[in-house]
Parts: sequence; C-alpha cells; structure tokens
Amino acid sequence: MILAQLGEPGAQIPVVQVAGTSFDLRPIAPAIDRSFFAADGIRAVSDALAQGTLIELPGAAKLRVGPPVQPGKIVCIGLNYRGHVAETGAELPPEPVVFLKDPTTVVGPFDDVRIPRGSVKTDWEVELGVVLAGEARYLDSPAEAEALVAGYVVSHDVSEREFQLERGGQWDKGKSCETFNPLGPHLVTADEVADPRALDLRLWVNGAQMQAGNTSDMIFDVPYLVWYLSQFMVLHPGDLINTGTPSGVALGRPDQPYLVAGDVVELEIDGLGRARQTLVAA
Amino acid sequence: MILAQLGEPGAQIPVVQVAGTSFDLRPIAPAIDRSFFAADGIRAVSDALAQGTLIELPGAAKLRVGPPVQPGKIVCIGLNYRGHVAETGAELPPEPVVFLKDPTTVVGPFDDVRIPRGSVKTDWEVELGVVLAGEARYLDSPAEAEALVAGYVVSHDVSEREFQLERGGQWDKGKSCETFNPLGPHLVTADEVADPRALDLRLWVNGAQMQAGNTSDMIFDVPYLVWYLSQFMVLHPGDLINTGTPSGVALGRPDQPYLVAGDVVELEIDGLGRARQTLVAA
Repeated sequence: MILAQLGEPGAQIPVVQVAGTSFDLRPIAPAIDRSFFAADGIRAVSDALAQGTLIELPGAAKLRVGPPVQPGKIVCIGLNYRGHVAETGAELPPEPVVFLKDPTTVVGPFDDVRIPRGSVKTDWEVELGVVLAGEARYLDSPAEAEALVAGYVVSHDVSEREFQLERGGQWDKGKSCETFNPLGPHLVTADEVADPRALDLRLWVNGAQMQAGNTSDMIFDVPYLVWYLSQFMVLHPGDLINTGTPSGVALGRPDQPYLVAGDVVELEIDGLGRARQTLVAA
Repeated sequence: MILAQLGEPGAQIPVVQVAGTSFDLRPIAPAIDRSFFAADGIRAVSDALAQGTLIELPGAAKLRVGPPVQPGKIVCIGLNYRGHVAETGAELPPEPVVFLKDPTTVVGPFDDVRIPRGSVKTDWEVELGVVLAGEARYLDSPAEAEALVAGYVVSHDVSEREFQLERGGQWDKGKSCETFNPLGPHLVTADEVADPRALDLRLWVNGAQMQAGNTSDMIFDVPYLVWYLSQFMVLHPGDLINTGTPSGVALGRPDQPYLVAGDVVELEIDGLGRARQTLVAA
C-alpha cells in the first residue's frame, strides 16, 4: 500500500493511494504517526480497502503533499555506504555510527528547505528511510527485525557540514536545523518493496545528477540496523531510521558545491517516488 | 509555582502544588507538555490559583510521582562545567557541545533505572534541566532567552560510557537507553528560582556523595545556551535542555565505580527537590 498525508501543516489528512486515487483514512486514524502504527493501522487500512468502505478524498490532487508520517524520533546512521565512507576520507566503521535528529525538522517532500543563517556548507543526502511498525527492544537477531518494519520512504537528511564537523562536539548540531528532513512523497509498505537491498537512489541539484547509489552498497542492511539499534535504545512504532547516504555529497566533491538559495534538489528511490525541494534563506 | 504529574505512566494527572497540597490541573490541560506551554498554561494555572477555582486531588500523596513534563525533545550540553571538563581530560570547549537524547527515555524521579544489557559502564550525571515555555528561533541575544524559560527541574542524564565513547561514532549511542532520563520531582517555574547561576547540585550513590557542584561553574549559562541553540535548531515549548553535569561522575574517578544493579542514586538541586532511583538489570 501507498500511504500519504495531504494538506497544509496542522491540517494534514491521511490517505491511502490506489492507482492514483486518494482514499480518506480519517475514519481509521487522524494521522499517520506512532498511534496509527501501534494500533495496527496498516492492517486496518488493508481491511478497509478489501471491504471497500473507504471514500475518495475530493480535490486530493490539489493539496500540498505533507510528510507521509510524523516520526516520534529520527535515528540516523552515518557512514553506511562504502562509497560515502571513501569520499569523506573516513575508515570503514566496525559497527554502525548512530546519531539523532530532531523530528520537528520533518517537512513535506516539495516544501522549501531553509538554509540556516550563517551557513556556508548546507549539503544534500538522499537516504532510504525506514519506518517502524512495532516496538524493538533487545531483538535477538536481525531476522526478528523484518516483521517490525512498516515501510520505506525517500528521506532527505539535509546537513550543514560546518555546524556538523567544525563547530565543536557532536554531529547533531549540523543535522537538526529547521526543515532539514524533507520526507516523502509517500510511505510504501514493506510488503510492496521486493528487495530493500537492491534499490537505486538518485539525487540531482539544478538538474545535474549528484548521487547515484544502490542500497546494495550499504555496510549494514536494514534488519541489521534495527536489531543493532534495539540493543541501545527502544525503537517505537512510527520512529524513522535514516539509513545513510551513498557517495556524491558536496562535502565529498573536489569543488564542494554547497547549496545556495534558489537551488533545486530532486531525489528519488526506486519504487518510493520522487521529491523536489527549493532552497531558500532562513 | 511547583508543577508535577502524578499517577502511573499513561494515566498521569497534572497538578500544581501549594504548601504540600496538590491541585488537579485537568480542567486546564490533560498533561504538562508542548501543548500546555504553547497555550500559556503557566498563566492559566496562575490565574486559576488566584481565582481559587482548582480542586484538591484526593489521595495525591499515595500516587507515583511521574516526570513533571513530557519533553518534545531533549537537547543536552556536554562538558559545560569546568570541573567536569578537567576530570574527563578534555579541552575547555570554545562553544557549547550539543547532542540529542531520545525523549522517550524520560521516567519519573523515583522510577527504576535499567542498566542496559551488556553494559559495564553505566554512569550518573546530575544536571539542571531547563524547560522551554516559548519557541526559540534565531534569538538576537541571550537576554531574549530569559522570557522563554518555563522553569527548572532536576534531570538525571544517565550515560553508558562504553556505548558513548568506545563503540564508534557519536555520543548519542550511550545516552538514549531506556529509562536513562529520570526527571523531577517537579518543575519549579522560573519566577521562583532567584538565581539559576547559583544553585548547588548534589548526587549520592548508596549514600556516599559523588557530585557536589554549583551552576556558577557552568561555562555557558542558561540564557547563552538557549540563544546559542536557537541558531542551530528551533526550540519548542516543552523542550528540555540538560545543561551539563559538574565533576564527580564515575568516568572521572580513579576507581571508576560504575553503577550495578541494586545501587541507589539520589540527587538534588537547591530549591528543585530531591529524587531517588534504584538501578536494576534491563
């Protein structure tokens, strides 16, 4: 299934999209969030579709596309693609590099991204986003993780490299600026993603392709990451994992062409749709 | 005013405490959280107290003490006390060290703290917690921050040092384990804290005093921190800032006496109350 949220911030309407038609999910839940997944919302939507009880949302095509989920927390994996590790000059990590991102950075897939005041190194990162359906606490094995994944989403882990790497301390400082996590256009449920280990990821800036990766280049795959994280924290339904970016970011290029106001970033992942954001000054 | 939340998780009742009596705040708000502060809940409580419209919560003394606020996010400041910087062997930071902590780690001030599986370096950190009342985005000066502080709270930034420092990458991995942020016993509104730059912080393990600091030893004070953070992220009403710990943590002691199951940690800050947690195995 394809889940989305349509409408302005604060008034978003959850929908399921079938062959281009958006069906209103408000009879099932007010939003796609922790409560939705904790109450087995995916099954409820599936049942309602099978029974034909959902009603089309009128005018859906004219509504803003919001983020398809409001995550409770965002856990990010750093340096998880071999190519990206090489371009940053880092060592291959022996275990996943983990950091957190403020979930209020989430915006819609076509919303503007604000370049922070004082920023000169705002960078792009296309990532496979993983949304949890269940609670993960001390999983015994990566195999146990598969049933806990609700689905996948295009996630843009926008990063300010000076804030992240040159302003002292931890990376979080360059990851949580306002609007720094465009998400969507939609959440594709796990049953419809044949192989999350074989998805192409692509990103363009002003039409020029900058990233062209495949999830097969991940050092730690999705089930391993969910299992690993569950040893250090509790993952809840609706939490988002940004699983790392392939090579091709501005930081890793000889000319370091960081983003400026007016730039347009487009990104897509096989089967998960395409997003497009314009950079503006904060 | 003294705000608290009483009752079991999932059924907590917000109260204001006056001379030992707890008045039920449910006519004003269902919880003390982002929505409460965003709707100017502190003023509403103050007005209701002045008008005498609140009703005593029966049996309040027998209820569990929950965390006095459910923060939207937790922003932590590292290495913010001169004494703690010295004991860890770090350099004085030229600007604040910032990291995030999963807000679902918050538990009540007398709840058990779970030592993570596989942990051998679970450590304590008494900290002055600052709760925001308003939104902070690109503040012009630290002076602007003062009006945005809702109040202060005893915060225990429990930390797993091996996870934090020896398992690769960023500190977040050792900061977000389940139950790792006991909070309370209550939130004291800013108007009742005469000088947040002159508060003693104390922590004991099994009755032996381990930390004895004063907020005057902070490198970056509260208004500076709020102003500084607002340049990198948006702080929302109900967000919590853990402002760093003074010296005396296990990591900084010659014998490194990390916590084990059965240990009892007590902590207090002048005017903000006292908390007590028992360590248990996860």
